[in-house]
Amino acid sequence: MGSELEKWVLMVTARTPTNIAVIKYWGKRDETLILPINDSISVTLDPSHLCTTTTVSVSPTFDHDRMWLNGKEISLQGGRFQSCLREIRARAQDVEDEKKGIKIKKEDWQKLHLHIASYNNFPTAAGLASSAAGLACLVFSLAKLMNLKEDNSQLSAIARQGSGSACRSLYGGFVKWDMGKEDNGSDSLAVQLADEKHWDELVIIIAVVSARQKETSSTSGMRDTVVTSALIEHRAKEVVPKRIVQMEDAIQKRDFPSFARLACTDSNQFHAVCLDTYPPIFYMNDTSHRIISCVEKWNRAEETPQVAYTFDAGPNAVMIARDRKTAALLLQRLLYNFPPQSDTDLDSYIIGDKSILQDAGIKNMKDVEALAPPPEIKDNISTQRSKGDVSYFICTRPGGGPVVLSDESLALLDPLTGLPK
Amino acid sequence: MGSELEKWVLMVTARTPTNIAVIKYWGKRDETLILPINDSISVTLDPSHLCTTTTVSVSPTFDHDRMWLNGKEISLQGGRFQSCLREIRARAQDVEDEKKGIKIKKEDWQKLHLHIASYNNFPTAAGLASSAAGLACLVFSLAKLMNLKEDNSQLSAIARQGSGSACRSLYGGFVKWDMGKEDNGSDSLAVQLADEKHWDELVIIIAVVSARQKETSSTSGMRDTVVTSALIEHRAKEVVPKRIVQMEDAIQKRDFPSFARLACTDSNQFHAVCLDTYPPIFYMNDTSHRIISCVEKWNRAEETPQVAYTFDAGPNAVMIARDRKTAALLLQRLLYNFPPQSDTDLDSYIIGDKSILQDAGIKNMKDVEALAPPPEIKDNISTQRSKGDVSYFICTRPGGGPVVLSDESLALLDPLTGLPK
Repeated sequence: MGSELEKWVLMVTARTPTNIAVIKYWGKRDETLILPINDSISVTLDPSHLCTTTTVSVSPTFDHDRMWLNGKEISLQGGRFQSCLREIRARAQDVEDEKKGIKIKKEDWQKLHLHIASYNNFPTAAGLASSAAGLACLVFSLAKLMNLKEDNSQLSAIARQGSGSACRSLYGGFVKWDMGKEDNGSDSLAVQLADEKHWDELVIIIAVVSARQKETSSTSGMRDTVVTSALIEHRAKEVVPKRIVQMEDAIQKRDFPSFARLACTDSNQFHAVCLDTYPPIFYMNDTSHRIISCVEKWNRAEETPQVAYTFDAGPNAVMIARDRKTAALLLQRLLYNFPPQSDTDLDSYIIGDKSILQDAGIKNMKDVEALAPPPEIKDNISTQRSKGDVSYFICTRPGGGPVVLSDESLALLDPLTGLPK
Repeated sequence: MGSELEKWVLMVTARTPTNIAVIKYWGKRDETLILPINDSISVTLDPSHLCTTTTVSVSPTFDHDRMWLNGKEISLQGGRFQSCLREIRARAQDVEDEKKGIKIKKEDWQKLHLHIASYNNFPTAAGLASSAAGLACLVFSLAKLMNLKEDNSQLSAIARQGSGSACRSLYGGFVKWDMGKEDNGSDSLAVQLADEKHWDELVIIIAVVSARQKETSSTSGMRDTVVTSALIEHRAKEVVPKRIVQMEDAIQKRDFPSFARLACTDSNQFHAVCLDTYPPIFYMNDTSHRIISCVEKWNRAEETPQVAYTFDAGPNAVMIARDRKTAALLLQRLLYNFPPQSDTDLDSYIIGDKSILQDAGIKNMKDVEALAPPPEIKDNISTQRSKGDVSYFICTRPGGGPVVLSDESLALLDPLTGLPK
């Protein structure tokens, strides 16, 4: 960097997936460093349907760090952002862009300011782990901008300090967050168990459930659980360690029945310890319960699991079908039980990979109305087809990890001004 | 008993209360004898609002055992009825009714047949522990008819074999079911901790919640929990024993904050282990959750518990208010949040001890509509006043144990024919 005020803007754009835990993270042993009380395992979701895109830029013309989320400027003052920025700047290296004639020495990063723009390709408020993808993308893109030598696993330990589950978004496929042993958190990081191609039959359908009540934030919720639940310690110390071993094995062997059983029981147990918290925390609602009943009834009728379900800190259901054929049958069942409201068109009710809808033989609303009750509920007269309980469904699959987008047209910041496009 | 066929009918009528556990029974170590995996503690509810009345009769003219529940004949062939009848007949004594000139020797009871009529003064299907009151009343009235020497605690061990929680209905006030240690169940019985006068400020309001789904029976539910939950053993062995000691102490000292905290957390933990069962069991629904939120918000605002809540194997809320004044304030809050449907009259919406309604200053539907939001939710715009989520409320209090009704006009069987009146 020359001594005169130069006008250049250097930037990097990256895309990072969101992830869904199948063995749940709930409870911290260190609130500041975000160190968990147990290991967790997640599936990375295909970024073409659920991801965060972030552009980070640096310029000698920037006079303070700024960030925009979905086009709106937000504060970077929070401790978690500050932790990530501090940790990354501390590891920054020399950067040279010969084409643009830019040279940044590693010590310069402490003085240079950043502009960051981030965008989720899904509703931020829908409870779909937007902070996980967001923090992971922030860390990943800054690491590229500042030429860090750390690998993704080491970067995950930085992302973890922004948002615990963000560390699992540094890899695609199947990811384990090792809780680690060190007090400084250096060994609390993500490792990839298998990439997304290892088990590529799986199909994921997410039901975005309409919520009536504001939810307890996961940060305060898990703090309350650790302090008040009489069951959480037993879960963390006795139950989860065994399930982690079993889940790693199920993923390795692509053993769907074990995978499903573990994912469902661990989701249920996470919600059980929430209920055992005082005052109790309810994330699932009656619609969530009905989705579980629908899946359980079918699984029982088939005598082997067809679909796994898991719920994070909200009422949305993430369902994992064993293959495409099963996913089509699942979608039929979901549309039978939760048809869209009359003023909703099918195209906005089923989003993501719409080819599943074709596999299910559903082309329009008439096909939805004509759906027959699935055989496993034929004797059950009480089944209700209630409209409006689900806002929409997202069809997706396990996906890949973070990538740099080299196409400058995808950047969220203007390459000349460093301000949002 | 003479050798000729005599026409006499001898009968006893008794009334037995229902009870609500404040430290929950969930899980058996012996399915046949109904031996629990932990102690439990209950409050007996005032029989003037919730009770079973049973008339048992014997006559040489009866040719088999018969039973009528709420006027409809039901089968006595179930193993649980048979256990109770066998255990009671085995302990039957000589009976003499000088006025009627009847003599029954104890060995005769094995040959004589019984007619039994039972009636609940509350809806059987409403999930209000009708089987507990029913089995307790069956055992108590038969014990009186057959002149058993056993005290109520020993009788409770028989009632237990009919329906576990029935054993706690043999006493009024505050009752502990000691799980016992013996394999034959002889020491698994109820003891009275304190009678209903010991803590007579308490007022109980029950919300009978409209349910959309059929519930899992508690018998199969607790079996599934014992087999599949990874948390139930820890609850039964580590958590409940401590809570039992604390709850006995809270009752002894009339320490409402401790009582409320223990009752609420134990109810929540029971529902947590149901959720940790595979497939998961949901007894509470969104309305139950909203009732909990309403109570918790108020308790937090007052900085000390005003009301405890507890839920059995269904969505109904049993709320225990610290005194009458608090109960009136609670009823205002409940009616604000859950007003009756427009076609419901207040008189059938609030049943039981209607004087609480007067204390709350509510005389008619206009008063309900005019209720202001309680101060603790003033800033919360999202509050909904949803009609129809609660079917009705029952106002009651802790009450007394079983009694014999000597007034023959209260008998449910005709004293000449031994058939339902």
